[in-house]
Amino acid sequence: MPYELYYWDGLQGRGEFVRLALEDAGAEYIDVARGAKKDGLGTEAMMKVMNSKTEAHIPFAPPFLKDGELIVPHVANILLYLGPKLGLAPKSENLRYVAHGLQLTIADVVAEVHDTHHPLATDLYYEDQKDAAKIRSQNFIEARIPKFFGYFERVLRQNPDGDTHMVGKATTYVDLSLFQLVDGLQYAFPRAMRKFGKHYPRVAALHDAVLERPNIALYVDSERRIPFNESGIFRHYPELDQDAK
Amino acid sequence: MPYELYYWDGLQGRGEFVRLALEDAGAEYIDVARGAKKDGLGTEAMMKVMNSKTEAHIPFAPPFLKDGELIVPHVANILLYLGPKLGLAPKSENLRYVAHGLQLTIADVVAEVHDTHHPLATDLYYEDQKDAAKIRSQNFIEARIPKFFGYFERVLRQNPDGDTHMVGKATTYVDLSLFQLVDGLQYAFPRAMRKFGKHYPRVAALHDAVLERPNIALYVDSERRIPFNESGIFRHYPELDQDAK
Repeated sequence: MPYELYYWDGLQGRGEFVRLALEDAGAEYIDVARGAKKDGLGTEAMMKVMNSKTEAHIPFAPPFLKDGELIVPHVANILLYLGPKLGLAPKSENLRYVAHGLQLTIADVVAEVHDTHHPLATDLYYEDQKDAAKIRSQNFIEARIPKFFGYFERVLRQNPDGDTHMVGKATTYVDLSLFQLVDGLQYAFPRAMRKFGKHYPRVAALHDAVLERPNIALYVDSERRIPFNESGIFRHYPELDQDAK
Repeated sequence: MPYELYYWDGLQGRGEFVRLALEDAGAEYIDVARGAKKDGLGTEAMMKVMNSKTEAHIPFAPPFLKDGELIVPHVANILLYLGPKLGLAPKSENLRYVAHGLQLTIADVVAEVHDTHHPLATDLYYEDQKDAAKIRSQNFIEARIPKFFGYFERVLRQNPDGDTHMVGKATTYVDLSLFQLVDGLQYAFPRAMRKFGKHYPRVAALHDAVLERPNIALYVDSERRIPFNESGIFRHYPELDQDAK
């Protein structure tokens, strides 16, 4: 039975971190909200699960994964669950906690990226919080990118199995997610990211290596890959971008 | 060998969610940063791990747990790891993903609570982002508390094993964390929380039930429980508080 991925139609958003793992592994999955109503799919089918009054384990928000009767919510939790099944998790149980910890740090960065354009409230328009967004974005570019990516660079440098993977000696879902994080930031903040490869050479090399994985290369050129846009997490608002130091 | 918990001294913060699980289970642990320098403990001992240039799996930030050589970072990851060892996780493997998903939603609320007083930047003073904090707090009280706690109330109501636990039929770390979340909000936003029990009776009952657990009752009255204060996640700034609807 194929996995069912539930995520908003029309944007990469948080769902994309799950898609990349499924695509890299060549797993069968249904992107439920993007399917057709006549097939019992679409946004309505997703809302039905979310609003169910009888479902035992309701998710707070998309993305969530359905595997048979089990509903697994939250990107990092989904990847924790799928990683071993897709061959994208470390074999050692201890290293799985390490991988999960790294994924949770990536999730924290993603939340901060969201807040660069929505610092005051998710349900206010961007236009109504533009001044606050400018301050938050400036701080994100000047303080948070160096702090987070300085850390990721260090993780690669100190990985005893080599500096081409975030954990262990093979590709894991963490590498795929770090690719997506860098890719999204390059879209949202092209000026700030201009010298990224110089400051974080190992992270940049990892991004490029993931893009050359056969299934990822096929996927990003396919129609299944929704282009980045201003409905997602990574939004390109030129007024929020600036050169990094 | 006792567990080693690493978290900033002087505040409950995110470390408290881990402490509650350790305390409830009566587990042996060392609160490293709160220990004395002469015993090889204290903040310096924590920074030594964080700044290590040789450690294979460095954490991004406290809290992290050390169990022998393994370092587990992030509250939800620590509880995922400790839960089964402390008898505070569901027995079913599937339900462990459900519990972890709930814990990650709690982590999202905690991050939003932090941002009520620091909406623009973690490293700016509260005084320099007070106006933005007022807008964000108002939205948190009017929109986010209802959304999150409406969800938690529903999770309790729809739990097929009964509405006294968040998942399954016994107390898990999720229940303890939800207690702490409610407790912290009562400290930070006493006006907004005044009718909390009326709107979210099952969540309020769970909070009270956790407080009556013998080890928790002992703990919160002990010197090990740091009082809430304005260095933590839950800060009482009266100007950010308001009546809820």
